[in-house]
Amino acid sequence: MEEILKKVKESSRIIATLNGEIKRKILNEMANRLEKYTDEIIIENKKDLEFAKENNLSSALIDRLLLDEKRVKSMADALRDIAKLKDPVGRVIDGWKIDNGLTIQKVKIPIGVIGIIYESRPNVTSDAAGLCFMSGNACILKGGKEAYHSNSIIIEILRYVLEKNHLPADAVSILPDYSRSGVEWLIKQDKYVDLIIPRGGEKLIRFVSENSKVPVVKHDKGLCHVYVHKDADLDKAVNIAINAKVQRPGVCNAMETLLVDKAMAGEFLPKIKEEMEKNEVELRGCEITLEYIDIKPANEEDWHTEYLDKILSIRVVDDLEDAIEHIETYGSGHSDSIVTENYSAAEEFLNRVDSACVYVNASTRFTDGGVFGFGAEVGISTNKLHARGPMGIDDLTTYKYIILGNGQVRE
Amino acid sequence: MEEILKKVKESSRIIATLNGEIKRKILNEMANRLEKYTDEIIIENKKDLEFAKENNLSSALIDRLLLDEKRVKSMADALRDIAKLKDPVGRVIDGWKIDNGLTIQKVKIPIGVIGIIYESRPNVTSDAAGLCFMSGNACILKGGKEAYHSNSIIIEILRYVLEKNHLPADAVSILPDYSRSGVEWLIKQDKYVDLIIPRGGEKLIRFVSENSKVPVVKHDKGLCHVYVHKDADLDKAVNIAINAKVQRPGVCNAMETLLVDKAMAGEFLPKIKEEMEKNEVELRGCEITLEYIDIKPANEEDWHTEYLDKILSIRVVDDLEDAIEHIETYGSGHSDSIVTENYSAAEEFLNRVDSACVYVNASTRFTDGGVFGFGAEVGISTNKLHARGPMGIDDLTTYKYIILGNGQVRE
Repeated sequence: MEEILKKVKESSRIIATLNGEIKRKILNEMANRLEKYTDEIIIENKKDLEFAKENNLSSALIDRLLLDEKRVKSMADALRDIAKLKDPVGRVIDGWKIDNGLTIQKVKIPIGVIGIIYESRPNVTSDAAGLCFMSGNACILKGGKEAYHSNSIIIEILRYVLEKNHLPADAVSILPDYSRSGVEWLIKQDKYVDLIIPRGGEKLIRFVSENSKVPVVKHDKGLCHVYVHKDADLDKAVNIAINAKVQRPGVCNAMETLLVDKAMAGEFLPKIKEEMEKNEVELRGCEITLEYIDIKPANEEDWHTEYLDKILSIRVVDDLEDAIEHIETYGSGHSDSIVTENYSAAEEFLNRVDSACVYVNASTRFTDGGVFGFGAEVGISTNKLHARGPMGIDDLTTYKYIILGNGQVRE
Repeated sequence: MEEILKKVKESSRIIATLNGEIKRKILNEMANRLEKYTDEIIIENKKDLEFAKENNLSSALIDRLLLDEKRVKSMADALRDIAKLKDPVGRVIDGWKIDNGLTIQKVKIPIGVIGIIYESRPNVTSDAAGLCFMSGNACILKGGKEAYHSNSIIIEILRYVLEKNHLPADAVSILPDYSRSGVEWLIKQDKYVDLIIPRGGEKLIRFVSENSKVPVVKHDKGLCHVYVHKDADLDKAVNIAINAKVQRPGVCNAMETLLVDKAMAGEFLPKIKEEMEKNEVELRGCEITLEYIDIKPANEEDWHTEYLDKILSIRVVDDLEDAIEHIETYGSGHSDSIVTENYSAAEEFLNRVDSACVYVNASTRFTDGGVFGFGAEVGISTNKLHARGPMGIDDLTTYKYIILGNGQVRE
């Protein structure tokens, strides 16, 4: 396996120097070829589905695994969308001249080799390869073994296009070891891999971030809050809370806990109960909440829980200070929103809540690379360093300094 | 010890919100108080020196440990210089409005808690504390046990100033465990520490980066090259090579290997031999080099060695391609320079050499936060991610997104 990584590393030096035009051409060719081989992909995918059924994998997993004509087309379209993005490589992000005449430029460059560890969904294979390629990086993919056949044919198609264009196919590689020990091995290869991005369940992400020698950008849990301040417009508050909880409950930017200022708890709680129940949301409240509305009690565990479901915990807080403290204690630093018409309260919330995305009067559901205008999304980082919040292909680059002189030496 | 880190974390939330004015005031007061207590600091420092002598520590180490009036003054001046830097916190680095009217701003914020692990020099204590404080971060310092008394009094002085200004002294804390196990423990505390910066020998840095659960920005070795291209101006080449090797051989941006194009090896090598020998540099050459000049032979080991001394390895290369390959194989991604008058060769070198700082016609010795204009230097990062090359206090920040709405929900 080390031999494979060595080749990926070597290929990364070539991929890093490609200009945007050739990268776009190749991504479009990859997209066309995926569509052309739709039938073959579906045949391979069926093998994975059969294996999954034989092994009684859950129906949710089988659905994530399934590829049909529509899904193959959307994989191809995703590559075409990536091909339309602005090439981040080579952008001069800063530059200046120092006294002795040296010109210093800070220039965006690819990171090198990116390892992506993911689970069942085979579309991640082409998405991830496309994002890495457009940003000038080689990638080593570690998919789930349940998608072995699907991933293999997708990779073969992508690599064929590279070869046809006289580029190293190794720039899009898949780890032949599909087991857990493949992950364990990959995250130690700091000699060859520059960045690891784990996508998947909390356990996988925890394992990778705790054991990796390679830097990790993780996409961890989102325990998002909406805080309804005493000076909130209650109609906005209801709309935002409903949207943040209900519009798509299974994603990381959905709200899990609603914080309600005690000053208007009596007025607001019955309203929100009615609306949430219309939307079939199960409510769990703190002791004070239960004085106003008749719902299940919440316990300490609830404040820590990312339900990813139509369940909401509600806590009545004394004031802004109390709300911020709750978010500091239980939040995951993902997305948190205050609903208020009060300027100073909004400002204080924005300054003090240390989350990747902090909102005033808007739903937490907007934390998304697409919404932010980044085009294709690499993911949503819960790291504090390197990349934070929605990640676009810009975040798959680093920089170097280029210094131009005419013989300068240091005194 | 966990109790201490908990307090550091809590204090970081307060430090993060301070404005520049109060931070400058406090840094200047810290500087004044260090000077005022010069005698007391020197008394404590003497205890460390005595201990060092009793334990037969090397004279180099004792020199690094020593504090006299001049050194205390320069510690104070360093804090004053930090106080003059532009406050990076709160700077809006990007911002835009999306179709539904949401305003998105990307704003610089402090990282939180920074752990700095260092060895003997006690001035690092005040430097590191000052840099972290100015960038709105709390810090937990892990100094060497040989500097125990010196560090303790310096920290006490800094903390006194925080307390006097009704700020949490815990924002500048020192780990009470001075042993190696203190390091081992600290680098696992990802719940409380957001970034670890190890400063010191290669062994320490390797240990920290391989075992840390907390993200690490490392200041690793500098194996820097100067490549004299066939179209080099040979006078510039001699000047640059001499400067890069001789001006301060013991630092990470000094040249360790000189690559010479075979096209002008016959002309250049005798010149550089003469000049290097005038400067008492020991030369070690590859087989081809030895055909031109009579010096010691270099072995494979030499290409891997950061001498940090007046020793230079010389290799004759076939061409630009060969030079780049040597740098890729043996370099440390720190600083590398090409000397050439040829535009295309310069461009190719700049594009393809993947080092933090890539030079044309200038000495590698310029890789330095001070030279780059960053003011006080945090160090020189050999990471590829988060911060690369010379680090200023700007690199001790991260960012968050602030999103301002008027009730928007996601469709």
